[in-house]
Amino acid sequence: MAELEELRTDIATAVDQVKKSNPLVGSITNFVTVDFVANAQLASGGSAAMVYLPDEGESLACMSGAFYINVGTLMPSHLEAMCRTVDTLCATKTPWVLDPVGIGLGEIRDDILMHMKDAPPSIVRCNASEAIALARLWDLECEGIAYEVRGVDSTDAVEDAEAAASALAKHIEGAVAVSGPTDLITDGDAVVRIEGGSAFMEKVTGFGCALGGVTAVYAAVASPFVAAVCGSAAFTIAANRAGVFAEGPAGFKVAFLDELYNAMPSDISDLPLTLLEG
Amino acid sequence: MAELEELRTDIATAVDQVKKSNPLVGSITNFVTVDFVANAQLASGGSAAMVYLPDEGESLACMSGAFYINVGTLMPSHLEAMCRTVDTLCATKTPWVLDPVGIGLGEIRDDILMHMKDAPPSIVRCNASEAIALARLWDLECEGIAYEVRGVDSTDAVEDAEAAASALAKHIEGAVAVSGPTDLITDGDAVVRIEGGSAFMEKVTGFGCALGGVTAVYAAVASPFVAAVCGSAAFTIAANRAGVFAEGPAGFKVAFLDELYNAMPSDISDLPLTLLEG
Amino acid sequence: MAELEELRTDIATAVDQVKKSNPLVGSITNFVTVDFVANAQLASGGSAAMVYLPDEGESLACMSGAFYINVGTLMPSHLEAMCRTVDTLCATKTPWVLDPVGIGLGEIRDDILMHMKDAPPSIVRCNASEAIALARLWDLECEGIAYEVRGVDSTDAVEDAEAAASALAKHIEGAVAVSGPTDLITDGDAVVRIEGGSAFMEKVTGFGCALGGVTAVYAAVASPFVAAVCGSAAFTIAANRAGVFAEGPAGFKVAFLDELYNAMPSDISDLPLTLLEG
Repeated sequence: MAELEELRTDIATAVDQVKKSNPLVGSITNFVTVDFVANAQLASGGSAAMVYLPDEGESLACMSGAFYINVGTLMPSHLEAMCRTVDTLCATKTPWVLDPVGIGLGEIRDDILMHMKDAPPSIVRCNASEAIALARLWDLECEGIAYEVRGVDSTDAVEDAEAAASALAKHIEGAVAVSGPTDLITDGDAVVRIEGGSAFMEKVTGFGCALGGVTAVYAAVASPFVAAVCGSAAFTIAANRAGVFAEGPAGFKVAFLDELYNAMPSDISDLPLTLLEG
Repeated sequence: MAELEELRTDIATAVDQVKKSNPLVGSITNFVTVDFVANAQLASGGSAAMVYLPDEGESLACMSGAFYINVGTLMPSHLEAMCRTVDTLCATKTPWVLDPVGIGLGEIRDDILMHMKDAPPSIVRCNASEAIALARLWDLECEGIAYEVRGVDSTDAVEDAEAAASALAKHIEGAVAVSGPTDLITDGDAVVRIEGGSAFMEKVTGFGCALGGVTAVYAAVASPFVAAVCGSAAFTIAANRAGVFAEGPAGFKVAFLDELYNAMPSDISDLPLTLLEG
Repeated sequence: MAELEELRTDIATAVDQVKKSNPLVGSITNFVTVDFVANAQLASGGSAAMVYLPDEGESLACMSGAFYINVGTLMPSHLEAMCRTVDTLCATKTPWVLDPVGIGLGEIRDDILMHMKDAPPSIVRCNASEAIALARLWDLECEGIAYEVRGVDSTDAVEDAEAAASALAKHIEGAVAVSGPTDLITDGDAVVRIEGGSAFMEKVTGFGCALGGVTAVYAAVASPFVAAVCGSAAFTIAANRAGVFAEGPAGFKVAFLDELYNAMPSDISDLPLTLLEG
């Protein structure tokens, strides 16, 4: 109970601090949803900058309060760009969020993700299938679960990814957020569950990417665990509100971004959530 | 008459099957409208995944029920990526849709499109000028028509592209959809014409691209000809409805995607269209 | 006073001519906001085409009435593509607009921008910090001002960039538009100031990019100075109107594009502005 109150206070503080300090968050992210990521980051109160070249990634990493790396839509130059950027982020102890979207597809993606095992993110934001696949790729010990990634969608339930998420969180010494009908956030000990959102979120491309980008914004001012909870809570409250009047996925997306912008710190920190201490 | 009724049944069946089976459709498509393509595919009931690298194109081709290739905004790596993906699609007999946007511009685009003459798409979705240009590039026999592609817009009328469309359809042994104020879809014998839509479609970038992407979704469950008619019919009904209240092109685009999402199989199959048997 | 009336007439004429002649404007622009740039160009009455390869840039430069180059999100192939395109634009005396976004970040961007010193744009569209940074990079004589570019945002006030803007305008023998709460447009002698717009413009990614793209559309039919004023005036009137009912940044963006589309020549030319003769 006391811990839950503390968490709520931390959420409210982080959201408020982002709105006041407008932290710069660099990204290397996929081409499909880069506009949505940037607009979600701006709506939540951050400043967004996207790059693709190795030296720009390194420089931007040094300037940023936190960083977001999403391994979708890779090009040949992404391997060096992402690895050098990640090394800089780790060297400068800058918090960063990984979205391992598309894990299992292609050689470059495998190489990039393997590089990150030893230059780990502060937060992994993914769906259930991706959490399981990443724990396997990194050969982490956790309950063995069959998995299948189909394109960019999850074929596993969030609950089935809890062991993988916990193993990942311990390995990176940070937090893992698994998105689904119920979001699960863990630092390897404590587990937060947040229910809600809207079915429209699966009918618009990029909600997962945008959540990763916004989580990075919060990571500029809060611990990985608190930042991951903030991102999930902010998206859930905005989606709950946007879903009330939306008549389709595109109108929902517009309303969601407006609600994300308008959500006050207390709106986000007061969202129902369950916390299980580790 | 009997054939028209049969076509309507095929349309309703395909639209319904897509909504129920959520087929995965991979794409290599341009950077300008990739978000619109993905969102239109999701709204119609498909699952979207975009890639740019050769090995990812090959793998995704093997996983997908159908594929979409749009040759806009090429980068150096696109030549190998598109050719290898197309070869895989043909080897696995996976249906795929080509949008030859920008035909005539640049060496790589010419090389890619020439490669596709012998590794042909199931469906070509294009405007009138592009249909004529592609028939010429492939040196297909059809009535000689002067043509000019200006940027990404058509300078020819849809009617003037009928011979080229028919020659293309016969060569690829599939279907060709020429978009314009009246859409024309042919398999080289039968010809369907669909009137309607909205003038706003020319004031928003990517309606042609999005139509190609959605046609690929239908191609995962239907013949090339039926899939092409489904795509055009779905876009026309959604545009007709979105156009009623729209006050400008951006509001129209939002309303269009919502109407595409909400269009029922019978809405799409009941749209007025003319069918001329070959 | 007479000059102001003349300017207003020139604005109305340019806006009207664009709507009637639908000029083709090619672009090499960043991946984040390319969809917004294209849609803003279409809404203002232009035709948009985006490319990334050197030979395509050269060909498109020859076909276009004007061109837009934005140095955001560079990839390795951009260096050659932008330099060869710029050389073609200068050789064919095709007007073009530069957005030096991200100036100071990365080697390739520096090389591209240095190349442009001797193959100069007709118009530079930027924020205050970027204007000062570009004048410094090109080693132009103007009052020394400390500057700092933070990501893609300005940390300087528009007023502080007036000397740099004037020096840039004289060097390129064109016009410079510095965006901010008050936009400043100068040809090195005359200075126009336009107040207004909406605070939401900073909460949506790409308003600066889109303004550069639309300014290029006007540059296809008007002098650099008039085109730059047209772009700024059109954006201001559309933002003023869109801001009245918008409840958040995403709804604002949709309304803005609709208002840009609906703005009549007289709406744009009648906007309050101040003109100081040089």
